Amino acid sequence: MAGGSGTRFWPRSRARVPKQLLPILGGRSMLAETCARIAPVVGRDRVLIVTGRTHARAVRAALPRLPAANVLVEPAGRNTAAAIALAALHVARVAPEAVMVVLPADHAIGDLPVFRADVGLALDVAARTGALVTIGVRPTHPETGYGYIRPGAAVAGARGRVAWVDAFVEKPDRARAERLLAERRALWNAGIFAWRVSSILAELRANLPAVVRPLEAAVAAGTRRALTAAYRRVPSISIDYGVLERARRVAVVRARFRWSDVGSWAALAALWGGNGEGGNALRGRTVPIDSHGCLVDSPQRLVALVGVRDLVVIDANDAVLVCRKDRAQDVRLVVEELRRRGLRQYL
Amino acid sequence: MAGGSGTRFWPRSRARVPKQLLPILGGRSMLAETCARIAPVVGRDRVLIVTGRTHARAVRAALPRLPAANVLVEPAGRNTAAAIALAALHVARVAPEAVMVVLPADHAIGDLPVFRADVGLALDVAARTGALVTIGVRPTHPETGYGYIRPGAAVAGARGRVAWVDAFVEKPDRARAERLLAERRALWNAGIFAWRVSSILAELRANLPAVVRPLEAAVAAGTRRALTAAYRRVPSISIDYGVLERARRVAVVRARFRWSDVGSWAALAALWGGNGEGGNALRGRTVPIDSHGCLVDSPQRLVALVGVRDLVVIDANDAVLVCRKDRAQDVRLVVEELRRRGLRQYL
Repeated sequence: MAGGSGTRFWPRSRARVPKQLLPILGGRSMLAETCARIAPVVGRDRVLIVTGRTHARAVRAALPRLPAANVLVEPAGRNTAAAIALAALHVARVAPEAVMVVLPADHAIGDLPVFRADVGLALDVAARTGALVTIGVRPTHPETGYGYIRPGAAVAGARGRVAWVDAFVEKPDRARAERLLAERRALWNAGIFAWRVSSILAELRANLPAVVRPLEAAVAAGTRRALTAAYRRVPSISIDYGVLERARRVAVVRARFRWSDVGSWAALAALWGGNGEGGNALRGRTVPIDSHGCLVDSPQRLVALVGVRDLVVIDANDAVLVCRKDRAQDVRLVVEELRRRGLRQYL
Repeated sequence: MAGGSGTRFWPRSRARVPKQLLPILGGRSMLAETCARIAPVVGRDRVLIVTGRTHARAVRAALPRLPAANVLVEPAGRNTAAAIALAALHVARVAPEAVMVVLPADHAIGDLPVFRADVGLALDVAARTGALVTIGVRPTHPETGYGYIRPGAAVAGARGRVAWVDAFVEKPDRARAERLLAERRALWNAGIFAWRVSSILAELRANLPAVVRPLEAAVAAGTRRALTAAYRRVPSISIDYGVLERARRVAVVRARFRWSDVGSWAALAALWGGNGEGGNALRGRTVPIDSHGCLVDSPQRLVALVGVRDLVVIDANDAVLVCRKDRAQDVRLVVEELRRRGLRQYL
């Protein structure tokens, strides 16, 4: 899933270059990292990318060795249910009995062999039980930006690492997030799923016929025009809310790998690690003087810091961001203000 | 006096473009502002600029209407005593009975008519009494970066606005600066002087013969080679320490105009005034979100601030400075570090 055009990595991310197309973690885009991460599990030629019109060309350029037909272009953004339905319908045409794994293209994952083993386990359980399988991450703090999963009884034959899901909890308020953390049982919903294609399509047909029926017709017709017409009618709804919370048999694998959805510049500081003096996370040519806890990303210009603490400083071609680290979520307010002022060249 | 290559306005000021050549206050360089400020008092063609080799070309470009001969180029920097001696010797050749006023090229002055009247008064007293006349500024805070002047008995016939100097106090420590402020009598030495050319040359000959004798010979010879040879022998010493503190008859005019030596980016914030929301001083295209007390100078790129307080953010072509406002003096540490690393392109 490589749709979406986030605003939280402005000024590096722009409408035409969203986060998943940026080399935010390493030398290549997050999308390319994601493909390299999953290819050994499913086979390089079996990776499908679902993206939007605006980014299709950039996606193909980011993955030059991927067959062109593996990039599925949505005529409009309709949230995760439509994107997943579209991909499942494409898989079903060539392999109706296949299992599939769904991954966001813009997450950071550590411990790759463990990740691949956990995904393999999720695929095994999905194939064996026919359930929808999610991957749950052990919470480290009372995050209010994620959904939570309450695991229940163990799934038989999975060495205690997979449980049937008791309940999904939508993004909680702070107090509820703290209670969920205190339970020491609830897991973060990482948005990574495994299932039989036949299972997810059956659940989509049962729970979201308005999403899957028009897409089935369009994929059967096989034309761009049909797809565009279908997307005009498809409602925008998430797979979590539209399917997972309503499905009867959902299981969750307890992840053993490190995971981050890299939700803001502040999250990056932890992922890059403090590589400079004073626990600064620095990229590019920087001169930190008596400055601590800062994240600096400046591929071109030199950035000098004097006497500052816990700042995010991002230098882009035409814009510079200076943001308090604990306000990194509010970078979207800059994007809103730019839009309000009609400064489209910075969007 | 347009010598010196300060480091406190990095990254805008560079070795080749020091503060006095920058349009830090308005649309033109501080040097051009200074010339425009004094020209109505002395006549445009009677303004002499003393500058260094590195900056001579830029000085002439900044003042295209000034006769080329009015730019006196020092072969090396030797502090204010040599610069003033060189200028006085040039004036003496054409007008030995003249009075002259000496101004730093990089100060900010408010209330121009008042400034011109005060300079006129200083020149009058200098012409009438033969004294060395300084201009003293009423302190607003216990500054440790300036020298102080203790005024004594009133100079007759100057309506109580000019006093004989009792004592000069060199840059004090904090405790002494606080006592001087509490006296409500001591004045800051603003580095603006008026005197008869014959008076300053007599005092230079009496107190600093090692400075003035080689320069007299070189100016008489009239060649660049002679001047270069002379400057090799001239000691580096300030006019305050070398002459004013030792001279017998020194007077001080109490300034009524607003004055700042614009010693750092932080000083600029007060001079620009808070022109944005939240008392930010902003130049260029800026998007301040919940940010206060910041100074931003970014002529080319857009600068966005999120949740920050009391920062200086300066965007130059090849470098960005992010500095706590109360640490603005420490910008020189960046320049030192750049020198240490051999990053000469940023100096």
